[in-house]
Amino acid sequence: MSKQVILTGITTTGTPHLGNFAGAVGPAIAMSKEHDNCFFFLADYHALIKCQEPARIIQSRQEIAATWLALGLDTDKATFYRQSDIPEITQLMWLLTCVTAKGLMNRAHAYKAAVDDNTNNQEDPDKGITMGLFSYPVLMAADILMFNAHQVPVGRDQIQHVEMARDIAQRFNYLYGEHFVLPEAKIEKNVALLPGLDGRKMSKSYNNTIPLFLPEKQLRKSIMKIVTDSTEPGVPKDPDQSTLYEMYKAFATEAECAEIRKAYAEGIAWGEMKQVLFEKVNAILTEPREKYNELMANPEYVEGILLKGAERAREHTVPFIAQLQKAVGL
Amino acid sequence: MSKQVILTGITTTGTPHLGNFAGAVGPAIAMSKEHDNCFFFLADYHALIKCQEPARIIQSRQEIAATWLALGLDTDKATFYRQSDIPEITQLMWLLTCVTAKGLMNRAHAYKAAVDDNTNNQEDPDKGITMGLFSYPVLMAADILMFNAHQVPVGRDQIQHVEMARDIAQRFNYLYGEHFVLPEAKIEKNVALLPGLDGRKMSKSYNNTIPLFLPEKQLRKSIMKIVTDSTEPGVPKDPDQSTLYEMYKAFATEAECAEIRKAYAEGIAWGEMKQVLFEKVNAILTEPREKYNELMANPEYVEGILLKGAERAREHTVPFIAQLQKAVGL
Repeated sequence: MSKQVILTGITTTGTPHLGNFAGAVGPAIAMSKEHDNCFFFLADYHALIKCQEPARIIQSRQEIAATWLALGLDTDKATFYRQSDIPEITQLMWLLTCVTAKGLMNRAHAYKAAVDDNTNNQEDPDKGITMGLFSYPVLMAADILMFNAHQVPVGRDQIQHVEMARDIAQRFNYLYGEHFVLPEAKIEKNVALLPGLDGRKMSKSYNNTIPLFLPEKQLRKSIMKIVTDSTEPGVPKDPDQSTLYEMYKAFATEAECAEIRKAYAEGIAWGEMKQVLFEKVNAILTEPREKYNELMANPEYVEGILLKGAERAREHTVPFIAQLQKAVGL
Repeated sequence: MSKQVILTGITTTGTPHLGNFAGAVGPAIAMSKEHDNCFFFLADYHALIKCQEPARIIQSRQEIAATWLALGLDTDKATFYRQSDIPEITQLMWLLTCVTAKGLMNRAHAYKAAVDDNTNNQEDPDKGITMGLFSYPVLMAADILMFNAHQVPVGRDQIQHVEMARDIAQRFNYLYGEHFVLPEAKIEKNVALLPGLDGRKMSKSYNNTIPLFLPEKQLRKSIMKIVTDSTEPGVPKDPDQSTLYEMYKAFATEAECAEIRKAYAEGIAWGEMKQVLFEKVNAILTEPREKYNELMANPEYVEGILLKGAERAREHTVPFIAQLQKAVGL
């Protein structure tokens, strides 16, 4: 295959927040304008690992799908699908499961972290750990290898998964012939790791997020809650130590940033800076927010887009799984 | 569900032998004459765990399918299918994977035996162990729960798998509502554990099997090779210590057995007893053997039967997986 395939998935357990936008969805949509073979999927099978509340998964899936569309994803160009609409993914997962060393999974970061927690608490090392948590790197390998993705844009915490997919692909190719492209993790260096309300990385697990499509008033209210230090108005402030500036940077041009750095040097008041930040973010989100609300009110339309995406994905997955099953002797 | 569902699978890695016939296929076919809801499947996904030779899997699948048909399975009555034709099986496997405790798999006999071997050899405990070997009890649970099987006829070594399927079903039902029947292992007490050429249980792993549909001459030759002690002709012999008698018992009526016990008491020669055994087995197999050879010469016909079986199985699995996916929020 000569074409470069780019693939990324987003787990459907939460409400999209500003951090997702700046760090994942935004860059992915930008990339899809420059590349022909982008595959973006709602990772609802992955959601099941962490979430056993069906209503939350359903809600999150609708919100995330609407978010990608509202932010301008062109689904005629990129293939946008829901993982669970592609039965070939789990079929491939089993083929890969049979060539994956258990030792490889023993070394997965997420699993090891859970074991460490248990051990530190003097519990059984595997307490509360499901086979879902233990074996999901194989599911990720299936996600990636199914589309012979060359590049998988990931954060640092995900590099290992792409390396594992690579290992598994090599093993399969060695046993059964060259069926898989070896994927590479593409580390997004320029991508913002947005801070949250408390200054730590914005993340569902820290409960410090600002939902992406809050109504304007609530967005403002949220931004006003961002923690700052108590430096008085008029006193010069260091932008590189400021959560507000770090956030602003993710949404503003370089020229705008330069101007704000000057304002920091001149001692801009925190309240004023929060207003600046709110206006910037709100300006960018006003139009998509409207689109988002329309889409959320029209789930059948979104469903139709997803089903069309699945159909398109399966133009590839159905013949490919047949080829792979034949290769292993099924 | 009020109807009793009975399910059994056979792994497609070897050539069917007399032990399979006496211990599994024969009793299953007999059962299918008395019960309406029998599901029998070629477990080719399971074959991948142990076998990475595609040609062997293909050959074995053809042989095993032809065997069941040659022995008189009525595929208009029983549902006879190939596991890999049912994509819903692996979809269900993932749903179950997410509710299965890793600790449960740690306790699986086959996995523990492999770890013990490694430990005894001072190797890494997980050396050479694939995720296939580690997680196949979840695949078995999917096989069983997919059809809401009440009874799963198994040998003693398989009881644990049915118990695990039960545990997994209970967990799923607890989280998502009562979707699964809790399956029960049905231990076949009257089923013969046929001895092999060397007197140990007839098993591929002991390399002591007699293939079921050997040509007549070779069948005779194989039976003549069965190991006996050196008791002379004319000297009374104990049938209950005799591999030949144990085999004979699996194929003969009670009246025939009583007669042969008399012959043992009268000191029947081993060579003569081997001839008796050969004639008995051959008489039972002559007709099926012919049918088997015809079927092996006509793989398209067998393929058609399997595809029809899959279609029938999927009348159940397609709506059922939709129900289950909806229940978990997909």
